[in-house]
Amino acid sequence: MDTNNYLSLNEKLLKQYNVEHNYDGVLGDRLAYRLNELSQIGLTDDNGSDRPGFSKEEKQAKKLVSSWMQEAGLDVREDGAGNIFGRLDGKNNGLPAILCGSHLDSVPNGGHFDGPLGVLSALEVVEAWNKTGFKPEKPFEVVIFSDEEGSRFNGGLNGSEALIGSADLQKKLELVDQDGLGFEEVLNNVGLTIEGYSTANRNLDEIEMFVEVHIEQGKRLENRELPCGIVTGIAGPCWLELTFTGEAGHAGNTPMNDRKDALVAASEFIFEVNKLPGQISDSAVATVGKQLVEPNGVNVIPGKVILYVDVRDIFLETRDQLVDEVLAVSKKISQKHQITVEHEEKLRVEPVPIEEQTQNIFEQSFHEQGIEPYKLPSGAGHDAMIIGDKLPVAMLFVQSKDGISHNPAEWSDLNNCVQTVHVLKNFIEKLQ
Amino acid sequence: MDTNNYLSLNEKLLKQYNVEHNYDGVLGDRLAYRLNELSQIGLTDDNGSDRPGFSKEEKQAKKLVSSWMQEAGLDVREDGAGNIFGRLDGKNNGLPAILCGSHLDSVPNGGHFDGPLGVLSALEVVEAWNKTGFKPEKPFEVVIFSDEEGSRFNGGLNGSEALIGSADLQKKLELVDQDGLGFEEVLNNVGLTIEGYSTANRNLDEIEMFVEVHIEQGKRLENRELPCGIVTGIAGPCWLELTFTGEAGHAGNTPMNDRKDALVAASEFIFEVNKLPGQISDSAVATVGKQLVEPNGVNVIPGKVILYVDVRDIFLETRDQLVDEVLAVSKKISQKHQITVEHEEKLRVEPVPIEEQTQNIFEQSFHEQGIEPYKLPSGAGHDAMIIGDKLPVAMLFVQSKDGISHNPAEWSDLNNCVQTVHVLKNFIEKLQ
Repeated sequence: MDTNNYLSLNEKLLKQYNVEHNYDGVLGDRLAYRLNELSQIGLTDDNGSDRPGFSKEEKQAKKLVSSWMQEAGLDVREDGAGNIFGRLDGKNNGLPAILCGSHLDSVPNGGHFDGPLGVLSALEVVEAWNKTGFKPEKPFEVVIFSDEEGSRFNGGLNGSEALIGSADLQKKLELVDQDGLGFEEVLNNVGLTIEGYSTANRNLDEIEMFVEVHIEQGKRLENRELPCGIVTGIAGPCWLELTFTGEAGHAGNTPMNDRKDALVAASEFIFEVNKLPGQISDSAVATVGKQLVEPNGVNVIPGKVILYVDVRDIFLETRDQLVDEVLAVSKKISQKHQITVEHEEKLRVEPVPIEEQTQNIFEQSFHEQGIEPYKLPSGAGHDAMIIGDKLPVAMLFVQSKDGISHNPAEWSDLNNCVQTVHVLKNFIEKLQ
Repeated sequence: MDTNNYLSLNEKLLKQYNVEHNYDGVLGDRLAYRLNELSQIGLTDDNGSDRPGFSKEEKQAKKLVSSWMQEAGLDVREDGAGNIFGRLDGKNNGLPAILCGSHLDSVPNGGHFDGPLGVLSALEVVEAWNKTGFKPEKPFEVVIFSDEEGSRFNGGLNGSEALIGSADLQKKLELVDQDGLGFEEVLNNVGLTIEGYSTANRNLDEIEMFVEVHIEQGKRLENRELPCGIVTGIAGPCWLELTFTGEAGHAGNTPMNDRKDALVAASEFIFEVNKLPGQISDSAVATVGKQLVEPNGVNVIPGKVILYVDVRDIFLETRDQLVDEVLAVSKKISQKHQITVEHEEKLRVEPVPIEEQTQNIFEQSFHEQGIEPYKLPSGAGHDAMIIGDKLPVAMLFVQSKDGISHNPAEWSDLNNCVQTVHVLKNFIEKLQ
């Protein structure tokens, strides 16, 4: 029995917390306390988090963090998309602001770090400044974006899209959640409106950069025993739906040399696709995660296979090159098996590379905190990916235990979280 | 528009029938008429056949054919499993009988030839003898087996199993159909009983051989433009359920070299398995027809793949060798990918080879009818497979258009059907 199950998140975090680096005002205890308080909102039977975007739980979580923002002396406002901004004026308040934060919504039965850690890390920087008396030259805003995960409408990032004005309103209005509620009805239920949502876009001249702290959701940092790492870019996914069509037939009565087995062709394709990314780029990945076989009977030769290839890289050129090679391989293999293949592009998001100069400033911050400045790509999309389409962005990844995410077992060690806040604070101070 | 859709089966059959070989009493018109009459029982909106085993439609079809048996002078009786026997006494009635027939039940929305053609071909032999005055030395019985397809209980051959006494009564009593009816209730609904079913086994000394005419359900004969062919054996299927277990992960955040992708391993396996049968035997086949991927999300590396391999051959030794090689390949590939594989055997039926001597008699009959004696294995199971476990069997395959079966489009040209009856009649006469 894991007695940890009987401890609150707070107690579990502090149990393994062994250094209180209070020299610059960052407090691990406060961070743990706040993570724990947030974890109580939408807590599931599995000790997971259930705070869908635009739900009363997400709204309650935003309200709680807003109250902490106010206690920390920030000027808090909400935009028409439900995004929350806690602003600290700069000494030169006319300069574009540094925005820093993440989101508070979760996937169903998700974890307690994906999102909240980014928001609370930004707030912890302000708390530290309150202690040390540091006054930033530029305005600093702690941000909470609405509905990042998108588990409600099977497509998220609705808050950050509203901020930069890239939301396709017509498409949003067609969205229906699993309870049959439309996008507008869902907004209305948490006190928002379509007018407000569609006019939430900010004047981008007011913003210099968006900085996001996020759990890695992978194992690179854990494998290297590093608390955090510098994100080099956010991979843009391209999703291809491929349909291999052969000929169904009786598994007993069709000789091996007279078959057009769609699954044999699809299988050779999947095996070959797995080899492609390494030939193109270190950061590229290609995954066949979903596959449907028809008719899917034990004794029937598959006549059709529909599969999805998820292709990502942080560089547009190599990502697109990989997409082209995946399609070329699908054609070559289907010809070899004398079957047909058709493809449909279901998604193509541009990768967001992070500027060299930004990465260099991070490197200095890492060195000053005595942490090896390890660089890694972000394979997953984040609010920073959306904002990065129009504005400079920066990201720090925090070590994730076993790379597990979107699951109650999601975990980041408090020592690692606190070290990340130190780096973040250092970085933002260097931006002044 | 296919105006053929407006024609009855009878009219469609006769439309392409160009020779009435009446020299030996076999009548294509009668065969077409009877196929058509049967097609009306359980006719679907798609012009398919819906006569589940132990249904009122199957019972009605048996009753109709029984009436034709009686008109042809056969002594008709039904056993406790609902199997029908139309007996023609032999000149030496104490000799073991030749049984010949098939079944009248169908899969849902199936065709009109799979089963009925075998029963009516046997009956047509008797009709021809009535015309020519031929009297067989040995008793001859036209047989209708109950519930061959097994679409009701997901497992058929219930009539032939009862005849040879191989039915596992305990297992049968546990069967439940999709309407929630148990095996006993289903029997009772068509006037049968469990006592009757369990005591339907015949004294096998009374039977010399079972002969079955069946559509090929493959394209070998069509590819060679042959009306019919000599079945060399009935392949015994072995069904393996294989579970490949790797590690699920985020498709974006897991580098290619840190993956344990169960689908990549399963795909390499499927591709390799496809090459194995040809290395072992000309008649061996191996098919992965069904595959389930978990969690099956576009952006999730598959953590588990469950797939089914259907391995068949007409020879026990090569079939079992192929099963062993399939398992060896699964182990080799899973080790290579550092994932695990487990297997469970879901089915293992012994193949039924057909005696050389029987095949030789068929060859003579083919030659005498001016047909090239082409030999081919039966990949599918048939009543002859069950009977073949205890008694000698023989099978003739009739050309199937496009190899399509279990579908309203199932079709056999009447010229081919009639030529098959000629061969069958010749063969049975040679057995005297």
